[in-house]
Amino acid sequence: MATVPLLNDEEVSAEALAVFDDIRATRGTDVINNFWLALAHDPALLKSTWERLKEVMGHGTIDPLAKEMIYIAVSVANACSYCAHSHTAAARAKGMDDAMYGELLSIIAMAHQTNALATALQVPVDEAFQA
Amino acid sequence: MATVPLLNDEEVSAEALAVFDDIRATRGTDVINNFWLALAHDPALLKSTWERLKEVMGHGTIDPLAKEMIYIAVSVANACSYCAHSHTAAARAKGMDDAMYGELLSIIAMAHQTNALATALQVPVDEAFQA
Amino acid sequence: MATVPLLNDEEVSAEALAVFDDIRATRGTDVINNFWLALAHDPALLKSTWERLKEVMGHGTIDPLAKEMIYIAVSVANACSYCAHSHTAAARAKGMDDAMYGELLSIIAMAHQTNALATALQVPVDEAFQA
Amino acid sequence: MATVPLLNDEEVSAEALAVFDDIRATRGTDVINNFWLALAHDPALLKSTWERLKEVMGHGTIDPLAKEMIYIAVSVANACSYCAHSHTAAARAKGMDDAMYGELLSIIAMAHQTNALATALQVPVDEAFQA
Amino acid sequence: MATVPLLNDEEVSAEALAVFDDIRATRGTDVINNFWLALAHDPALLKSTWERLKEVMGHGTIDPLAKEMIYIAVSVANACSYCAHSHTAAARAKGMDDAMYGELLSIIAMAHQTNALATALQVPVDEAFQA
Amino acid sequence: MATVPLLNDEEVSAEALAVFDDIRATRGTDVINNFWLALAHDPALLKSTWERLKEVMGHGTIDPLAKEMIYIAVSVANACSYCAHSHTAAARAKGMDDAMYGELLSIIAMAHQTNALATALQVPVDEAFQA
Repeated sequence: MATVPLLNDEEVSAEALAVFDDIRATRGTDVINNFWLALAHDPALLKSTWERLKEVMGHGTIDPLAKEMIYIAVSVANACSYCAHSHTAAARAKGMDDAMYGELLSIIAMAHQTNALATALQVPVDEAFQA
Repeated sequence: MATVPLLNDEEVSAEALAVFDDIRATRGTDVINNFWLALAHDPALLKSTWERLKEVMGHGTIDPLAKEMIYIAVSVANACSYCAHSHTAAARAKGMDDAMYGELLSIIAMAHQTNALATALQVPVDEAFQA
Repeated sequence: MATVPLLNDEEVSAEALAVFDDIRATRGTDVINNFWLALAHDPALLKSTWERLKEVMGHGTIDPLAKEMIYIAVSVANACSYCAHSHTAAARAKGMDDAMYGELLSIIAMAHQTNALATALQVPVDEAFQA
Repeated sequence: MATVPLLNDEEVSAEALAVFDDIRATRGTDVINNFWLALAHDPALLKSTWERLKEVMGHGTIDPLAKEMIYIAVSVANACSYCAHSHTAAARAKGMDDAMYGELLSIIAMAHQTNALATALQVPVDEAFQA
Repeated sequence: MATVPLLNDEEVSAEALAVFDDIRATRGTDVINNFWLALAHDPALLKSTWERLKEVMGHGTIDPLAKEMIYIAVSVANACSYCAHSHTAAARAKGMDDAMYGELLSIIAMAHQTNALATALQVPVDEAFQA
Repeated sequence: MATVPLLNDEEVSAEALAVFDDIRATRGTDVINNFWLALAHDPALLKSTWERLKEVMGHGTIDPLAKEMIYIAVSVANACSYCAHSHTAAARAKGMDDAMYGELLSIIAMAHQTNALATALQVPVDEAFQA
């Protein structure tokens, strides 16, 4: 149902296969999810996306689970069905339990609500909030 | 510049003033930001929004700073100028330093990028991601 | 601050001026708001937009004030600052009082909240809802 | 296909069941749609969402059918598939006929079109539109 | 799965059938895609949408393939699943090869990324960019 | 008015200054627009964003002006004020005249309109459009 066929190891270029191998090694699993199978039609885009994702999500000062929850928040706001599914699964794998998921949904719902109110009312930014 | 005048203590109803008092007490400050001054035109909406916000943001299993970063992520995706300003300021007040802010921006930018790719390609959801 | 200068009667083409005249006549005012002054750079786009708007908003089975409130709802969701301002003003001119505005904001805020929840949870559509 | 299993009466907590009972009583039907079955994983979120929805949609100065049409408008702008389906069904149940639905779609389409133009041109807000 | 049944030639009004005939003649094909079959419930909306689309997409100074790529870009940003599919197919039919598609996706992903950063940082518009 | 101060050559790190120098050399101008001055707080993010932008926009099979118009289309859909301004200026600099701009706006407006209709009606994707 994608706009391109999903490609497997036999069908991709050597450059794309190298990215697949790195995904498998980094994640410690044989399974590569559909997003990468679809991106494999353009090895350069596949590679730059994966490299940047690995860098952004892989280290730093923000807790890895918090990062996934931020990713879910963006995905929901963008109405990206695939992304909501895949990053919810990723957050679960990193330890998000039912209570945290409920709390995350509450924050996301709250933010959408107050965003709509601030935009509807066209509230001017407080001077104190400006750098 | 709002669609309604911002109301001060002298101009609001008793119900709205009670909410203002609770905001001041909860936050330990005399300043009430413009969002609440604009909402004060509808005391019931002001009250329900503040009560729910206090509940959602005030306790739970997710770290308070992580909550603010999730709020920023939603606000950016919704292109809410007021919200981007106010929640960035709130996150700063809760300890977000320059490194964390840069990292947060990197995650938000990354998520928008992959959201767009998944939507453009209409990637079907992996079975493994479905409950 | 627009991406094009706003054009006055002396600066526009004859085709655009005819649209300006129709706007004035239809609305019973001499003032033409900035949206049309900006669109006047492209008389064909100005004309088709105005003609369609007049048709869509000018008659039908939905109450004119309800139409403006629907317009506000879309404008808020699209984070269109100009549109939030102009259609809130238009709704006020058509009789929206403070109570109705507060109620409208409550519905808009509620809808954003449940939209976010349904999208986050990727709730499957009930069979009963499908045509 | 949701990110959580849909829960039935036997699977939910007592708090969630009480909300289910209230939904059934309020709507005069035995059927509870999937949105609530998914939210039931977090009884507090289920309860607060339902209570607020009942309050916002259940009474006031705006016509109930107009409220549903406003809800549809937001849902479409947010690209919420579930919400477009469920609120179109709700509007139908409240009397929206084919002519009104066509008219609603025309307004929604028109608003998206002019929103895009105003945003593209970055039209400055007329002074007359500011409170 | 639509909110309305899709109508075939035998089910539509004479006005809608005339639009169907024009779509067939203009596109040189017997197939009418689902979008128009759904819109046929409202012949006036069907007709105005088709007439405007034909005018906007059918001639002008921008290359027809570039127009389709612009259409894809909007559709992705709006998370419109149907539109992403239909306009990707249309762009393919107008000559978009794999390299161009990959490049288009790269631009779309890049734009979403920098849009998010500019919005998050609330960067003020440079004077040089204002008309 | 940004969430961070805009940094000049004297205030940025050596790594950020090297990016500034490359921007100046690549664009053949001494002026660096505000977006980069804001990003300079995080030299790594500045560098990766600029490097990727240069690669995506700088070469390939899609016409440079078409690329800028695609960028405008995304920016409008995301309601990014800064981006609408900066990429409209960039498209002007690459040769977009008034006729092309009007045509671009017409396509963008048309796409938003049909996107809204397809989403509202939840039109199922034609089999012919699926890969």
